[in-house]
Amino acid sequence: MKKILVIGAGRSSSSLIKYLLDNATNEDWLIRVGDMDLSIAEEKVNDHPRGEAFAFNALEPDQRAKEIEACDFVVSMLPARFHIEVVKDCILYKKDVITPSYVSKEMKALHEEAVNAGIIVMNEIGVDPGIDHLSAKKVLDEIADIGGEMTCFESFTGGLIAPESDNNPWNYKFTWNPRNVVLAGQGGAAKFIQEGKYKYIPYNKLFRRTEIINVEGRGNFEGYANRDSLKYRSIYGLEDIPTIYRGTLRKVGFSRAWNVFVQLGATDDSYILEGSKNMTHRDFINSFLAYNPHDSVELKLRYYLKIEQDDIIWDKLVWLGIFEDTPLNLEEDKTPAQILQQILEAKWTLEPHDKDMIVMWHKFGFRVDGIDREIHSSMSYIGADQTYTAMSDTVGLPVGICTKMILNGTIQLKGVQLPIHKEIYEPVLAELETFGIVFNEMEVEPVLY
Amino acid sequence: MKKILVIGAGRSSSSLIKYLLDNATNEDWLIRVGDMDLSIAEEKVNDHPRGEAFAFNALEPDQRAKEIEACDFVVSMLPARFHIEVVKDCILYKKDVITPSYVSKEMKALHEEAVNAGIIVMNEIGVDPGIDHLSAKKVLDEIADIGGEMTCFESFTGGLIAPESDNNPWNYKFTWNPRNVVLAGQGGAAKFIQEGKYKYIPYNKLFRRTEIINVEGRGNFEGYANRDSLKYRSIYGLEDIPTIYRGTLRKVGFSRAWNVFVQLGATDDSYILEGSKNMTHRDFINSFLAYNPHDSVELKLRYYLKIEQDDIIWDKLVWLGIFEDTPLNLEEDKTPAQILQQILEAKWTLEPHDKDMIVMWHKFGFRVDGIDREIHSSMSYIGADQTYTAMSDTVGLPVGICTKMILNGTIQLKGVQLPIHKEIYEPVLAELETFGIVFNEMEVEPVLY
Repeated sequence: MKKILVIGAGRSSSSLIKYLLDNATNEDWLIRVGDMDLSIAEEKVNDHPRGEAFAFNALEPDQRAKEIEACDFVVSMLPARFHIEVVKDCILYKKDVITPSYVSKEMKALHEEAVNAGIIVMNEIGVDPGIDHLSAKKVLDEIADIGGEMTCFESFTGGLIAPESDNNPWNYKFTWNPRNVVLAGQGGAAKFIQEGKYKYIPYNKLFRRTEIINVEGRGNFEGYANRDSLKYRSIYGLEDIPTIYRGTLRKVGFSRAWNVFVQLGATDDSYILEGSKNMTHRDFINSFLAYNPHDSVELKLRYYLKIEQDDIIWDKLVWLGIFEDTPLNLEEDKTPAQILQQILEAKWTLEPHDKDMIVMWHKFGFRVDGIDREIHSSMSYIGADQTYTAMSDTVGLPVGICTKMILNGTIQLKGVQLPIHKEIYEPVLAELETFGIVFNEMEVEPVLY
Repeated sequence: MKKILVIGAGRSSSSLIKYLLDNATNEDWLIRVGDMDLSIAEEKVNDHPRGEAFAFNALEPDQRAKEIEACDFVVSMLPARFHIEVVKDCILYKKDVITPSYVSKEMKALHEEAVNAGIIVMNEIGVDPGIDHLSAKKVLDEIADIGGEMTCFESFTGGLIAPESDNNPWNYKFTWNPRNVVLAGQGGAAKFIQEGKYKYIPYNKLFRRTEIINVEGRGNFEGYANRDSLKYRSIYGLEDIPTIYRGTLRKVGFSRAWNVFVQLGATDDSYILEGSKNMTHRDFINSFLAYNPHDSVELKLRYYLKIEQDDIIWDKLVWLGIFEDTPLNLEEDKTPAQILQQILEAKWTLEPHDKDMIVMWHKFGFRVDGIDREIHSSMSYIGADQTYTAMSDTVGLPVGICTKMILNGTIQLKGVQLPIHKEIYEPVLAELETFGIVFNEMEVEPVLY
């Protein structure tokens, strides 16, 4: 019997743990689920005969080493910054390990050590990063196989609300970490390349430089650029591609309204808003507007950001209650981003029966035998409920499937790896399809400049 | 004979060193001027019989200690971050010390030690900070003396081009560190309070929230908010003042045009612009605009930032040469801010006979016996040439005068000090007047909401 150690049993681990338990008898696994909070681990294991829940502090070196030494395989679902210590122990005790998170520089540097230890350190195998790699690299390899030369690669992913639960003017609810949504796009200009020209978008323009994207069967979305698209050139072996662009999807109209908060400075997390403890929603918005003893907050905001009287973004703003005299009731002064998050959480939180949706869309432009061609590949997936969400499934299932493929020898790679090899993406995508996570690929008439 | 050690003989030390040498015989001083670059120190001392130039690395602990121990008084004109080590040595060897720079937290923490050593550590006695403190605190104390209660304090300073040298469409040239001009306003929202309401302006709106200020005899200027006006409440003992606002002056129209670069992201210093080594000015601007194979950079920019066909900011942009195919000729890729600085330096650099100008303006709103009153205090000062600039004079003269007042016992304070005491501002302002640095105070009809 193989012992699998799962570190971290939070929301994002639900589908992963279910997958591992569902496969445990067939594969002869024991699933040990450790979390700082024992009750969360117990809830996820749910008395399954092949599962064990235990209290586990992965930051405590002795306990971590002991548990890793005693198992056969490690799945780290910790916040990204904590993986590195886990992986160092996995190298020491020669245990294969998997994480859904982005590979850090520190992690990459462990490649030789991992190879020497004879283990795989599998990373970026959640949804984004993860399923994006699998589904993109599959098409990229197919294009390379027919001698195609890539001219353009675009890739967009969104964590959204399912159509059946989409009942507010923003067409958006928090289906994942609200703080990340409020801070999205901060911390540096978005970088990409288009037709061989480097392009840079500062944060203050990010939500005004959107592209409209039609996803087969799901209608129109808008995409705004992710931080650094340029690094994907080396990851995908597309060093000379003239156009590469990665972004985030929202329903059409979201970004233009969100931009109001960006322009006001209400998403800033870098300073404490003095006096905010005693502010109302209205005071909070007013703190970003010029003083005037007579004019209303509404008119000052319209004038400042040039919002026309009949602009539909106004309904979105009003609906959020930002002009209301509702006290913030803070225990202490907070940052603008923290306060905005609190205001949004009162409106964008999922109702009990709400479902979430993951949408992914890739565009591949390429040339074969002097002829320009274009392929679109898209996937949308709706969660079952608020435990087995689309987000939890699309993060956890690839991790779980890949765990199985490593343990049963389908994947033989060693060292620090990304899921960009056929050996990985082919079997994982195939099994994801059995869960309804299916990419719809189609060739379209290329649109050229 | 008292030995005065001047550390740093750069541009900002010219007027200071001249002042000290001019007073050296009368006051029986020897002026030792040390700089990493001996030739700069020699040039400033200019064989004056009371002066000595020497090569000095103030970052080298042994040499620093030896020089400080051997002198009677230290003037540190180093970049602000280097003062702290100088001051620690001054405490050790019990030498009075003066710097024109902002007091850091670290510096403030040395107050008790300085008092115990029986020395003064005088800071913020240049122009801004410096002359602003002197001139503002004088009026604030006068208002307090007649029982006035402060209702509003505003203060603006600008380092500008003198009217006789003002011959470009921006009404601006680099009269001081160009890098600071390009980065001005970055690193956090501007914070102030108006009529008891906290107000915050993010960087992306900073140059659109200007105020028009008329300076007696100099016409209209515009002011944009400085980073943190709130901290001046405690410095000036105005904890409960409902309105406090500090800002930077430019000629009218500058900020709205400068905002173009802010909106584009061209002032960003946080990342390297990939490919910039081989760009032209036009490519640089184009890297912030959407790709289009047909449209011109000009039209894309106008459309993106909604610049009307007849808007006067357009002439300013064209005049800078930003649309020209001039190669940047960089040795390596640089940040947007570095590149913008290079483009601006080709246009905004002083011509040999150009003169600079410092303008300062304060507004004091107060109430006495139930009656609202308002005083304006303003100063403008034009430099003599490009050695004895207005900037060099207004930084160096207060430092020099204050040095004299400490050495001759007029100023007896000990510890880490700012020039906000009558004992300091009264004699320093009086002597500054003999150099033509004169504040024009006048009571005006108060403008109330």
